Amino acid sequence: MSLIPQRAVIREVGLRDGLQSIERVLPTEHKLEWIRGAYEAGQREIEVGSFVPARLLPQLADTAELVAYAKTLPGLVVSVLVPNLKGAERAIETHADWMLVPLSASVAHSLANLRKTPEDVVAEVARMRAARDASGSKTLIEGGIGTAFGCTLQGHVETAQVLRCMQMLLDAGADRVSLADTVGYANPAAVRMLFEAARNIAGDRLCCAHFHDTRGLALANVYAALETGVTRFDATLAGIGGCPHAPGASGNASSEDLAFMLADMGIDTGIDLGRLLALRARVAAWLEGEALHGTLWRAGLPKTFRPVSTSVF
Amino acid sequence: MSLIPQRAVIREVGLRDGLQSIERVLPTEHKLEWIRGAYEAGQREIEVGSFVPARLLPQLADTAELVAYAKTLPGLVVSVLVPNLKGAERAIETHADWMLVPLSASVAHSLANLRKTPEDVVAEVARMRAARDASGSKTLIEGGIGTAFGCTLQGHVETAQVLRCMQMLLDAGADRVSLADTVGYANPAAVRMLFEAARNIAGDRLCCAHFHDTRGLALANVYAALETGVTRFDATLAGIGGCPHAPGASGNASSEDLAFMLADMGIDTGIDLGRLLALRARVAAWLEGEALHGTLWRAGLPKTFRPVSTSVF
Repeated sequence: MSLIPQRAVIREVGLRDGLQSIERVLPTEHKLEWIRGAYEAGQREIEVGSFVPARLLPQLADTAELVAYAKTLPGLVVSVLVPNLKGAERAIETHADWMLVPLSASVAHSLANLRKTPEDVVAEVARMRAARDASGSKTLIEGGIGTAFGCTLQGHVETAQVLRCMQMLLDAGADRVSLADTVGYANPAAVRMLFEAARNIAGDRLCCAHFHDTRGLALANVYAALETGVTRFDATLAGIGGCPHAPGASGNASSEDLAFMLADMGIDTGIDLGRLLALRARVAAWLEGEALHGTLWRAGLPKTFRPVSTSVF
Repeated sequence: MSLIPQRAVIREVGLRDGLQSIERVLPTEHKLEWIRGAYEAGQREIEVGSFVPARLLPQLADTAELVAYAKTLPGLVVSVLVPNLKGAERAIETHADWMLVPLSASVAHSLANLRKTPEDVVAEVARMRAARDASGSKTLIEGGIGTAFGCTLQGHVETAQVLRCMQMLLDAGADRVSLADTVGYANPAAVRMLFEAARNIAGDRLCCAHFHDTRGLALANVYAALETGVTRFDATLAGIGGCPHAPGASGNASSEDLAFMLADMGIDTGIDLGRLLALRARVAAWLEGEALHGTLWRAGLPKTFRPVSTSVF
């Protein structure tokens, strides 16, 4: 069965997944301009940063300031990544709307990247849930399962292990779960199989797909996921990103190419492509010399392109 | 309904669609090495050139010699492009297995590119069919419908017009028909819709899909076409190509990225990816300075990759 939705959300994760893999520190004023520009282009979900120690990721040290600014934009859903309870407490304090807790289904990747087993992460999610509930906060907890399609360290990751991690996260109190192809190993057939199986476990709590374009398959994988009912996709402007602990991985799905594909298919993302391409040009100028990706900025929109309604929903 | 086949064919069209858009003339000895290398990598269908006047496309002037060589390789299906009856006569004389007759569904593109209306091309196909049958030749005639998803000159191309051209080609005696996104305007939803409609008209005579990666959607479009039952795809090594009469178009689907996607999905193409990547490196060296595309050559195969049977079928 093919389920092509009328609407889909592109969650901009360039300020987190993109910038964390780039050594240079983008000034806060540029990040604020990026958030504002994405908002003005119609994006309504942005992962603005990560609550990790600044000594580990100095690029993301201004996350609290970014959350505070982003929260002033009406209707913007503000996400942050939090690796542990301490990060979750900051997300709660700053009134982030969503906090994404990364869990690697690959034990080898989990130990290398997070210095924890998947079970350790699940236990931490239970503590976050308790803290969140005790505080009366409305910050939603998303368990993001990485290396869901394989891992550059460990190689194959069993589907059963991915689904087991998903069930554990839900049992521990995650409000939402998502699947990430952290290292660019997914293909459309694998996406279809895994997302269908995950939907059986999580139902509508399966909230997002996160693809990397390492081998050029990000948009094909998005299409396969769309057909299983996924309507939220992580992406980064200019396709920046990659995981420092996943050698060879490079480039998230590009926000602008993805926004074009969805709009051209008649799926409303609320995004104004002209504004998004103008923002891409500004961000590309700030990041000159870094590896940038995507094709639409060069090819331009087709003569036949007609935007779907860009009314924000 | 999703129909993922067990086997699919990647028809290498780099020697024609790729090289015709590059000004430099690749020496015949390099083309012979390319054909041999593609064959040794397991490719069993190659479009080796075009029977057009050498003054128009000096890059492809050695097509007869390439056909003669390719015909010595057991089991290789040798295709050529022929724009008119004269070209078809040469294809018949040289015993090419397939001859592809391009027809542009866009009247504006047809006039600019071929100096003929679609109806003129159909009339020529009828003459080719008569000549082929009179000669006792077994060369199959493929009517390749270009600008099937839109046109940079004319803009929108009506589905009804594409299907009308397809019916006319079949009525005129084309043995096979195919659909091409000449300028990179297709998206997966449009692919699904058009190929399903075309299948209703042509049945199993609908033989091939030809996508350009101008806006990054070539592989997503392949996946959508696969789901409608297409099992043959044109592609070019290193994604070279583009149409000189379609400004902004650049790059066919990359053979090596496509071969990886299909193999990783468990679809047997008969291609040895290691050999294909080695050939890509040689071709890239010959074409240094030209616009090359594709991602697999840089990222390499995933640690988890296991080739499907590479027995040639």
